[in-house]
Amino acid sequence: MTSLPADPAPFYAAHVFVCTNERPPGHPRGCCKDKDAEKLRNYMKVRAKELGLGGVRINTAGCLDRCELGPTMVIYPEGIWYRAETFADIDEILETHVKGGGRVARLMLQPEDGPPPAKA
Amino acid sequence: MTSLPADPAPFYAAHVFVCTNERPPGHPRGCCKDKDAEKLRNYMKVRAKELGLGGVRINTAGCLDRCELGPTMVIYPEGIWYRAETFADIDEILETHVKGGGRVARLMLQPEDGPPPAKA
Repeated sequence: MTSLPADPAPFYAAHVFVCTNERPPGHPRGCCKDKDAEKLRNYMKVRAKELGLGGVRINTAGCLDRCELGPTMVIYPEGIWYRAETFADIDEILETHVKGGGRVARLMLQPEDGPPPAKA
Repeated sequence: MTSLPADPAPFYAAHVFVCTNERPPGHPRGCCKDKDAEKLRNYMKVRAKELGLGGVRINTAGCLDRCELGPTMVIYPEGIWYRAETFADIDEILETHVKGGGRVARLMLQPEDGPPPAKA
């Protein structure tokens, strides 16, 4: 095995990816966009700035493939997934997780909530 | 400080976010889409599948805000950033980093390659 030099320092302290993927109407898996994901992402960007959180990036993501559980997001590097449905949910994730380093247990997704069904 | 239970196991072993953001023509920062980011992302998805890599997700991302260095991607949970410009670059990242757990030093972005200039 090759010996590796140390990895670079993280570029973002908290890198949030909010799924805003859209599927065709009537798709059995649904999609985050139909669950107001864009509005929630926009709100999260504004609130993160208002809170003065440094080193935080609120990013748009394509399909995170946990559609049935949406609207979904994942926060790296810790890899914690959330379902956030309201502005109050977003506030709590920003305050408790991103700012405070804690977890919002009531909104967290567990691995057993997936993986999604095999694709046809 | 609140005592936290252990975090859930990672949902993806390697979660790759490829920026495909488009800026208006002539924008001084440029954009990844103008540097064939969509073609590179599509290739990466196909190749990851061909290689039979399990637990890997190749995701589309909105602007990762390192536009000048694009086409950019970041791989979590390790938080390693790459500039990949060719299919050969993608192959090397998949084989060496995602499959082998190594690093492709010649393509890695360093923190001092950013952060981007302050927004107007």
